[in-house]
Amino acid sequence: MAADTTGAGPAPTRHPHAGDPVFDLHVGGKLETVSTVSLTGPEDLSLAYTPGVARVCEAIAEDPGMTQHYTWVPNTVAIVTDGTAVLGLGDIGPAAAMPVMEGKAVLFKQFGGVDAVPLCLATTDVEEIIETVVRLAPSFGGVNLEDISAPRCFEIEDRLKALLPIPVFHDDQHGTAVVALAALTNALRLTGRDPGATRVVVSGAGAAGVAVARILLEAGVRDLAVLDRRGVLHSERRDLTPVKRALAEDTADHFGRRGNLAEVMAGADVYIGVSGGTVPEEVVASMAPESIIFGLANPVPEVHPEVASRHARVVATGRSDFPNQINNVLAFPGIFRGAFDVHATAITEGMKLAAATALADLVGEDLAEDLVIPSPFDPRVGPALSAAVSAAARADGVARR
Amino acid sequence: MAADTTGAGPAPTRHPHAGDPVFDLHVGGKLETVSTVSLTGPEDLSLAYTPGVARVCEAIAEDPGMTQHYTWVPNTVAIVTDGTAVLGLGDIGPAAAMPVMEGKAVLFKQFGGVDAVPLCLATTDVEEIIETVVRLAPSFGGVNLEDISAPRCFEIEDRLKALLPIPVFHDDQHGTAVVALAALTNALRLTGRDPGATRVVVSGAGAAGVAVARILLEAGVRDLAVLDRRGVLHSERRDLTPVKRALAEDTADHFGRRGNLAEVMAGADVYIGVSGGTVPEEVVASMAPESIIFGLANPVPEVHPEVASRHARVVATGRSDFPNQINNVLAFPGIFRGAFDVHATAITEGMKLAAATALADLVGEDLAEDLVIPSPFDPRVGPALSAAVSAAARADGVARR
Repeated sequence: MAADTTGAGPAPTRHPHAGDPVFDLHVGGKLETVSTVSLTGPEDLSLAYTPGVARVCEAIAEDPGMTQHYTWVPNTVAIVTDGTAVLGLGDIGPAAAMPVMEGKAVLFKQFGGVDAVPLCLATTDVEEIIETVVRLAPSFGGVNLEDISAPRCFEIEDRLKALLPIPVFHDDQHGTAVVALAALTNALRLTGRDPGATRVVVSGAGAAGVAVARILLEAGVRDLAVLDRRGVLHSERRDLTPVKRALAEDTADHFGRRGNLAEVMAGADVYIGVSGGTVPEEVVASMAPESIIFGLANPVPEVHPEVASRHARVVATGRSDFPNQINNVLAFPGIFRGAFDVHATAITEGMKLAAATALADLVGEDLAEDLVIPSPFDPRVGPALSAAVSAAARADGVARR
Repeated sequence: MAADTTGAGPAPTRHPHAGDPVFDLHVGGKLETVSTVSLTGPEDLSLAYTPGVARVCEAIAEDPGMTQHYTWVPNTVAIVTDGTAVLGLGDIGPAAAMPVMEGKAVLFKQFGGVDAVPLCLATTDVEEIIETVVRLAPSFGGVNLEDISAPRCFEIEDRLKALLPIPVFHDDQHGTAVVALAALTNALRLTGRDPGATRVVVSGAGAAGVAVARILLEAGVRDLAVLDRRGVLHSERRDLTPVKRALAEDTADHFGRRGNLAEVMAGADVYIGVSGGTVPEEVVASMAPESIIFGLANPVPEVHPEVASRHARVVATGRSDFPNQINNVLAFPGIFRGAFDVHATAITEGMKLAAATALADLVGEDLAEDLVIPSPFDPRVGPALSAAVSAAARADGVARR
C-alpha cells in the first residue's frame, strides 16, 4: 500500500447520531480504495503512470486477454442494486441502499479476497439496468446483483448472463439457496432422510424462495410445494407470473399439492420460510416427526426458534444469536473467489451445487442438531468453497485457465 | 483495515512479460478495495452488516443528506472513460484504457486522499455515456471524465454538469489548463509581462487546447490565437465545430490573427503546444525576445527543450526528465479534495483559477527559469490547492458545508 504523502484526507466531521455504536462505526463509510503499488518519486510515477503505462495499454489493445494479467479487473466484482428490495426495508432507493452494498464489499474482501465496488443505480427500469451493467462490464470480472425486487430480478439476471462473458450472480437468490441447501443436506443426514423421499414446503416465492426451490430440485428433492401469499403455486392458478408458473409445473403439480400453508404443512418433513410473517404453533405441530424448520426472515423468523424447538429436531434461522445461522456470507465470497481463480465465464448450477456440498461437508463429524452449517468466521469456509467452485467450473467447461 | 481472515486472495500467476519492470509492476493491477472497519466476530458483523446496517439505511431514506456522513460516497470519485483518446494512443477502447484509469485512481488517493473507482465504458455514444453516468451518480461524490475524444468530451461534460448536483471535471481539459496557467503565471512574473499585454499562441484545439485557451482568457490574456491542424481559428473559416467557432470569436478575431503556425508565431511571446508534431527551429527563433515555450505533447514535446532553450527564457514540458513538468497530477487530486471537503455541488471557474493561483504561489521566492511550477512530490501541493479550492467553492456559493 502506498503512503499518503500529503496527509490530505477527508475532513473530520461531527455526525448527527454520535454515540450510537452503529452510526459511529459508519462515519465516513466502510470502504476505501488503496494503491497496491508504491509511488515515492518520479521514477515510480514513470512506471505506474506515464510514460510506462502506455505500453501496458498497448499490450491489452493488441490482446484483450492481457487484462487478466495487468489490471485489477479479473479480481473485481460490481455490486449492483437499484435499491428496490433492501433487506426487509423494501424499496428505499439507491442512496439508502449504499450502506448495505458497502457492507457487502467489506465481506467480499474479508472472506474471499475479492475487490468489490458498490454501484447503486438511479433507475428501476429493467432495460436501463441491463444496458447500464453491459456498458460497465469492461471494468469488472463479475457482477453481483443485490436487493433488486422480484420478479424483475429474474429477467435482469437471466439476460445479463446471456449477454456477458463474466459471472453474473444474484446473491439474494443463489447465495441464500446455496447456504440453505447446505444446511438442509446436513439436516437430512442427521434425520436419516433421502432428499427424493422428503416432503418440503418453501414459503415465499420471491427471489430467495424461487432460487431455494430450484436448487432443491437440482439436489434431488421431488415432493416440493412453494407458496406465495395466496397459497401453493400450482398450474390451475390464473394469477401466476411466468416464473411462478414454471416453478409450479416443476413442484406442487407433480404431487397434486394444493391449498394454504396450514393444509400443506400437515405431515411435511421440512419447512423453509423466506417470506416473513408468522406460522401458528399448531401448524408447526402438524408437521411430520423429527421435522426440520428453517425460518429465514430477518430479524423476525417465521417460526421463533423456541417455538420451533418444541416440535422440530433441526431448527435454523438467519440470525447470529441462535444456532445454525443461514447467512449468505457463507457463500458469495468463496463462490466468486473460486470463479475468479479460474477466470470463469459464468457461475453454473454445478458450481452452486459444489459450493453447497463443500459447505455441508465442512461440518463433518461435528454434525449435530445445533450444528448443521459452519460459522461465517470458520476460516476453512472460503478456501473450501473456492476450491470446490473452481473444480466445478473446470468440469462445466467455463474455466478459462 | 480489516485483516483477511481466510488467507484467500487472487491465485498467483506467471505473466507473459515477466522481467519487464513496467509489466512486473502491473501484475494484478494497481488498485484494491479495503475495508475501513474491523470484522472479527458476529458482534462486528451485526454492527457493520445486518441487522445494524438497516438503521443507517433508514436514516438515509428519511434524509438523503445522511449519505454525506455514513457512506464512502462523498469521498469517492468515478473516473469515467470510453477509451477514445487514451494518452497519445488514441481510440484503444475501454479495456485497454484501464491501466491509465487505475493509475489515476492511485494518484487521486496518494495526492488527495480521494477514493476513486475506474469505470471504462463499452460505449462511445454521447447520449449513452451521459445516461450511464447519471444512473451511477448516487454512488459517487464526483465524476472525473478522462481520455474522451474531442469534440464529444465538451458536450458530455457540459450536459453532465447541468444534470448532476456533484462536481464533474474533465481532467484532460481542466487539469492541464490549471497547471499550464500556474506555470505561465510564474513565467510571466519572471519575464515581467502583464497577461493583458502578452501575445499567446496555443497550438491544438482539442480538449486540452480549448480548455487552456479558455482559462487564459479568464486569467486576463487578450491577444490569443488558437490553432488546429488547418491554422488559426477565426470566424471566417467554414470548417469549425461550434466549440471552435465560439473560441475563435473570443480569441484571434479580436486582433485579426490569421494564417498558419509560422505566420502567427512571428513576434509571439508565448507558445503552448498541446497538439503533437514539431515546430521548426526557425519558427521558434521568430518569437519575441525572452519568449516562453511550453511543449506539452508526450513523450515528444512540440519543441525539444534543448532547441527551445536556445531561443526562449522559460521552457516547460510534460516530461519528468526536464525542468518545469506540466503534469495534471499537480491539480486534480487537490481540486477534488478541496471540492469534497466542503461537499461542493460543482467545480466552478473560480475554483480552477484559485487552484492555479495557489499552485503558482507555492513556488514563491524560488521562482527561476527552471522552476516555474512545483514538483508533483512537493508535499505542500495537495493541502495548498484543496484549501484554495474549498475557499473558492464557498465564495462561489457551491459549498454545502
